Amino acid sequence: MSVVGLGPGDASLLAPLAEAALSRARAIVGYTGYIESVPSRLLAGKDVIATGMTGEVERCERAVRSALAGVDTAVVSSGDAGVYGMAGLVLEILEKRDLLDQIPFEVIPGIPALCAAAALLGAPLTHDFAVISLSDLLTPWEVIARRVQAAAAADFVIALYNPRSKRRSGQLALALDIVRQARGEAVPVGLVRQAFRAGQQVSVCPLGEFDPEAVDMLSLVIVGNRATRIAGGRMLTPRGYAEKYDL
Amino acid sequence: MSVVGLGPGDASLLAPLAEAALSRARAIVGYTGYIESVPSRLLAGKDVIATGMTGEVERCERAVRSALAGVDTAVVSSGDAGVYGMAGLVLEILEKRDLLDQIPFEVIPGIPALCAAAALLGAPLTHDFAVISLSDLLTPWEVIARRVQAAAAADFVIALYNPRSKRRSGQLALALDIVRQARGEAVPVGLVRQAFRAGQQVSVCPLGEFDPEAVDMLSLVIVGNRATRIAGGRMLTPRGYAEKYDL
Repeated sequence: MSVVGLGPGDASLLAPLAEAALSRARAIVGYTGYIESVPSRLLAGKDVIATGMTGEVERCERAVRSALAGVDTAVVSSGDAGVYGMAGLVLEILEKRDLLDQIPFEVIPGIPALCAAAALLGAPLTHDFAVISLSDLLTPWEVIARRVQAAAAADFVIALYNPRSKRRSGQLALALDIVRQARGEAVPVGLVRQAFRAGQQVSVCPLGEFDPEAVDMLSLVIVGNRATRIAGGRMLTPRGYAEKYDL
Repeated sequence: MSVVGLGPGDASLLAPLAEAALSRARAIVGYTGYIESVPSRLLAGKDVIATGMTGEVERCERAVRSALAGVDTAVVSSGDAGVYGMAGLVLEILEKRDLLDQIPFEVIPGIPALCAAAALLGAPLTHDFAVISLSDLLTPWEVIARRVQAAAAADFVIALYNPRSKRRSGQLALALDIVRQARGEAVPVGLVRQAFRAGQQVSVCPLGEFDPEAVDMLSLVIVGNRATRIAGGRMLTPRGYAEKYDL
């Protein structure tokens, strides 16, 4: 079975290797919202198993049963299947069921949301960065807050996944408060919603002007490091060439 | 002008949007080693500007001159153009030359090396992670070491870019010593060389058995967090489903 990263969602960012894996599969398994972004020619005539949010475990169990029955099965994730995606849970279930020797397992990488967002923002990730999910469904908030604190203190650029939902409306502001202590109000913050999809929104502003209320679960937030600046409306994290060479 | 991520190098992982940008461009600019991985049909009949290692500034200057002369110009980076890639330097040069309003600038995202390596290793990146380059060409070693220390203490999975070269042979061992203090000898370490390219090598072992001498500049190293384990020869960083649900 394969776990396939769909990239940001638009077919123009789906790699040929991922397309081939989906084309070959006879069963395609995924969150309903991601299945919708699979080109329909790749779904036609197949066993499509789509489940809702928080249905991850059921979804992976069904995918493993499908593969165990000898059906070429692809589990899809948006972005890259390894970055907070289904690769881990599928592998974990294969391990628990003692099926690692019986079911071939491969991961097809995709363009992760952080790279899609960064591309639209300019060049925020050109230096060391930390990627943190603000979702506390599976991780205690104290652990998340400690990671934000560590990343802010060590001057990582910070990409925040799952930054805010209706249920979790306050944690983004708490995380940005931690960053503010280390970097002040002027550090640039980028917000990308629906990268490379219908309804795409991109904005950059100093932290002091950033409104967490504009953020939802379809968004990704990137906070600059101490050297990041705004250049022509873009986020620019210099790598250090200007100091070394005379630009 | 566009800055295009080529992905790991194999054409099967080049997104159609990147292919279209390269097809449209009349000038293609990049490090010689990356230009070689551009399909030749996309180079034929074009102005190809290839320069060697550490030729980044010259390369970007020439690309900007080409774009300023009205030539549709694409600068290529391996992996994602934003992750330690050329997106930042091109933007910085456009800013210094006051050309941001004159030259349209876009970044086409690609599959970054860390996702390619993670896919081959299994599922190491399924939880929060930090990405750190060990190259001290543009960043003082003290800053790098502090980031490794912070990431290790806050239990990030850690992806190490530019882990080791002939000139910089000792820093990987120093970085792993820092990790060892926080995580002991048993934490899994993954090594991927030439991901999805000829000569691909993939290995996973506990830190205590890891040999930094096997690592070169074509390699990427991923160190697990405290929960990462080896499952059927793969790296598995559980997200936390096993604690929340009965797997």
